[in-house]
Amino acid sequence: MRYNSDSLPSHSHAALDHVHDAQTQRKIINRLSRIEGHIRGIKTMVTEDRHCPEVLIQIAAVRGALDRVARMILDEHLTACVGRAAQQGNIEAELEELKAALDHFLR
Amino acid sequence: MRYNSDSLPSHSHAALDHVHDAQTQRKIINRLSRIEGHIRGIKTMVTEDRHCPEVLIQIAAVRGALDRVARMILDEHLTACVGRAAQQGNIEAELEELKAALDHFLR
Amino acid sequence: MRYNSDSLPSHSHAALDHVHDAQTQRKIINRLSRIEGHIRGIKTMVTEDRHCPEVLIQIAAVRGALDRVARMILDEHLTACVGRAAQQGNIEAELEELKAALDHFLR
Amino acid sequence: MRYNSDSLPSHSHAALDHVHDAQTQRKIINRLSRIEGHIRGIKTMVTEDRHCPEVLIQIAAVRGALDRVARMILDEHLTACVGRAAQQGNIEAELEELKAALDHFLR
Repeated sequence: MRYNSDSLPSHSHAALDHVHDAQTQRKIINRLSRIEGHIRGIKTMVTEDRHCPEVLIQIAAVRGALDRVARMILDEHLTACVGRAAQQGNIEAELEELKAALDHFLR
Repeated sequence: MRYNSDSLPSHSHAALDHVHDAQTQRKIINRLSRIEGHIRGIKTMVTEDRHCPEVLIQIAAVRGALDRVARMILDEHLTACVGRAAQQGNIEAELEELKAALDHFLR
Repeated sequence: MRYNSDSLPSHSHAALDHVHDAQTQRKIINRLSRIEGHIRGIKTMVTEDRHCPEVLIQIAAVRGALDRVARMILDEHLTACVGRAAQQGNIEAELEELKAALDHFLR
Repeated sequence: MRYNSDSLPSHSHAALDHVHDAQTQRKIINRLSRIEGHIRGIKTMVTEDRHCPEVLIQIAAVRGALDRVARMILDEHLTACVGRAAQQGNIEAELEELKAALDHFLR
């Protein structure tokens, strides 16, 4: 999703105001906050000399949580931005950016 | 590494006293702190309505950083704990724990 | 890309006739054939009792090669199909399918 | 597991001949054969111009199957080789090789 509504023409305000879904954005922020707390917890584990395999399992859990946030952002982006760009006839730049981003996940 | 030195006999000889390498532990904490900051930065990006592909690239970067920390912990663990357990003849429980942890990374 | 050209009207104009790029398709087939040969080689390694870490490294190499093929298919798909669906105004079903496919990569 | 029995002292033949578990080895070969067939199936899909998202889902499935084989090999290796090396007091080289192999999975 193009979170930034500045780029939208002001006269299409009503129709395009909710480029991104506010509820989804809040969910994403909440998940990221939980991941942040999880990382802090892992730091405490390391400081407290917890056994490595337990630490590794927590790191794997954070990695899974990050992938789920990425998926949520990607789904919203495809619906909101790519869908809208398609309607407006300027989808090419949008697709190029999407490819570049996905290349970071499929290494 | 068994970070927890409580489980070691206090009279344990110098060589085994430092079950984990203090410098490695500090490096791991530093990297986790940087990752925590990175997540906070991503939250700001979402709040500021930054374009999704940029957000996705930052999430992929955090994922890579997490894998590098996991690798560092794993390397230290194999050298320090598994190596020591082998010397002490009680390696089986250690290997079982290690397998369980690695299963979380190879899904 | 919609590889299947049967679904296109035969009189379709030049620009849309090549829904997929023949050269890309050939490249994808070649890469898949190399991966197939790689897997066969790994089977031989296992049969010949080769040391496990070597086998694991080859499996990791195949996994990397698979990701690169997936990326190539995804790039072509975004350019050819999603781009075309957008021009034809029927992008929604295309995006839903794409989301479902990407969910298998971000677990 | 050290598949290669050449490195074993000949007089311990009986006891150490089955360094690896024959049943596990057969399972690994079977899984690799299925993966090989799966790749061939994906090549057919590409040749037959099947829709990309379907192809991507099959590639993701192969990637998952590869990870499960890697896990099976790793589990067997930790039990058979690392465990045995530990008993024989020459675990260091074994651990170094294992680290090098795991680094290919945690990138």
